[in-house]
Amino acid sequence: VTEFELIARFFANQPDGPDSPGDKVISAAGLQKDQDVQLGIGDDCALLRLDNFCSLAVSVDSQVEGKHFPVHYAPGLVASRSMGAAVSDLAAMGATPVGCLLALTLPKADAAWLAVFSAEVHRLSKRWQIPLIGGDTTAGPLQVSITVLGKVDSTRVLRRSGARVGDDIWVSGFLGEASAALRYLDAETKGQLPDAVLQNAYCKQLLQRYHHPEPRLELGSWLLGKASAAVDVSDGLVADLGHLCNSSAVGARLVVDSLPVSASLDALLCREDALHQILYGGDDYELCFTAGAEYRQQIADSGFVLHRIGEITAGRDISLLLNGIIQQPAHTGFDHFRKG
Amino acid sequence: VTEFELIARFFANQPDGPDSPGDKVISAAGLQKDQDVQLGIGDDCALLRLDNFCSLAVSVDSQVEGKHFPVHYAPGLVASRSMGAAVSDLAAMGATPVGCLLALTLPKADAAWLAVFSAEVHRLSKRWQIPLIGGDTTAGPLQVSITVLGKVDSTRVLRRSGARVGDDIWVSGFLGEASAALRYLDAETKGQLPDAVLQNAYCKQLLQRYHHPEPRLELGSWLLGKASAAVDVSDGLVADLGHLCNSSAVGARLVVDSLPVSASLDALLCREDALHQILYGGDDYELCFTAGAEYRQQIADSGFVLHRIGEITAGRDISLLLNGIIQQPAHTGFDHFRKG
Repeated sequence: VTEFELIARFFANQPDGPDSPGDKVISAAGLQKDQDVQLGIGDDCALLRLDNFCSLAVSVDSQVEGKHFPVHYAPGLVASRSMGAAVSDLAAMGATPVGCLLALTLPKADAAWLAVFSAEVHRLSKRWQIPLIGGDTTAGPLQVSITVLGKVDSTRVLRRSGARVGDDIWVSGFLGEASAALRYLDAETKGQLPDAVLQNAYCKQLLQRYHHPEPRLELGSWLLGKASAAVDVSDGLVADLGHLCNSSAVGARLVVDSLPVSASLDALLCREDALHQILYGGDDYELCFTAGAEYRQQIADSGFVLHRIGEITAGRDISLLLNGIIQQPAHTGFDHFRKG
Repeated sequence: VTEFELIARFFANQPDGPDSPGDKVISAAGLQKDQDVQLGIGDDCALLRLDNFCSLAVSVDSQVEGKHFPVHYAPGLVASRSMGAAVSDLAAMGATPVGCLLALTLPKADAAWLAVFSAEVHRLSKRWQIPLIGGDTTAGPLQVSITVLGKVDSTRVLRRSGARVGDDIWVSGFLGEASAALRYLDAETKGQLPDAVLQNAYCKQLLQRYHHPEPRLELGSWLLGKASAAVDVSDGLVADLGHLCNSSAVGARLVVDSLPVSASLDALLCREDALHQILYGGDDYELCFTAGAEYRQQIADSGFVLHRIGEITAGRDISLLLNGIIQQPAHTGFDHFRKG
């Protein structure tokens, strides 16, 4: 049983609710008509309709020590990764941040740890204009759960479910860098990374990508009304594109030669390793989105770093076009329970 | 350093934000005028202003195995305690539930555990009309964080900060039962509770109160426009009334003889023990609220089980009137870090 199967099996199938994850609009009991719930289980955020023009996007993201970040990871980096991952879910919907809540569990009331952690939370809260409006602090194994709230145009909100056969598939920035950093991370956390590696600009870039996820908020907003579907790449390109395809009931073909390879990956990894990180590595928090061919020029001219990497297909599979041969992906991506 | 000092020190003092917890209204950067944040750190919920008439109340509540519930606690009871505690924060503001998000961390993907847990989540979600709209499931030490969203009349929302000198202090139902259950809990969880105790209706009542918190949603709604301040009793009467007094910059005098003693506490505990549970025991999730004397008759005639237990005073202390003598409380209540 994978994590996604777990969620789908037990939590998405609500009695008297929709029988599959997706974007079906239901009228929740006791709500006024202008505050209908657009159920979001299975998407990056849940949506509450505030009025005819505006929805509230809500999402929660948990980061557990030893699973999502290393044991003895610096408190500022715990904050940076947790905030970045949570806010990225707003970017994936094209939502503008409104506020966040922090549920923090930590083994002991360590003032030095908390000073650094909270300073970074406040810094990012200001940077992304997402005020910290509430929270809960408890004793226990280190874990951070962040709930993010945003607002978004009800009619243009980016969902996973809107991709159509023939749409272009795009990705922002460069993938694979954060997961490629994992080979240096353990040594870095223990202070055992050799100086030669620490000074290497390419290695620094990989670690930077792992430590400081940058939610693509501006891009998400810009894509409203242009992208037909979107998802943030947290579990890996193939895995998250798979979620988008499942929600949209379509397939996808990725053109491997069109996948962007960053200078750092190109310098440090052989091509086969680099492609593996790009296809299957998580934690990049770039946006993967689909759009009709009529938007191709506008997207290319947008000023954002965006690459067209494939096409939405009929059927339900993701395939890779490599050296003129169509292949199936090696696996479908990160699973917290399987790899835990 | 206590939990509340921690939160106050690091998270309530946001740079460029208000310098103390409370209900100050700030205009958060980037928000439209109709969606101002009414900062709620230090209250039961945060408030986002949706329009001139309606605010969104948001709160997160974490429950950690071995801290908030016993190790090997039954999955349905984990769900019941977590949901009840979280939804109680909406009741304390007088808010009507809109939706909830579930961040679940569990050691392994145990289908039998999840089936029972999720069934109870769905049952309570339906009972309290709070649809499950999102979540995150990860591998790690067992912990449940629930984010609740509700809506409430902006102008009449119940806060901790509105109590005035001379207001009556009221409490709903009976306090001390949930904490009195702790003496049976360990044996019950291990299946070692003697039959004579298991069959005892008073013991059953105490355990029921611990296992199945009942948020006072109807009472909270009814109190809108009547109560001057409110808080739910999760940490203990003296502790939570202390938070209310801090937020309102007032003191309180509790008349110990007017504290309601339930039939179960009266049957099982000596009077001194019973009063100790009532004053300092947590986990009851009753509402403690203040109201002007002009509402006294209306509240007494409301049909809710409500007891008038004291009066708001000038100064900042909580005192107890017992046998004609004014005393100071023995301590101020539960602290997750101190007792953890």
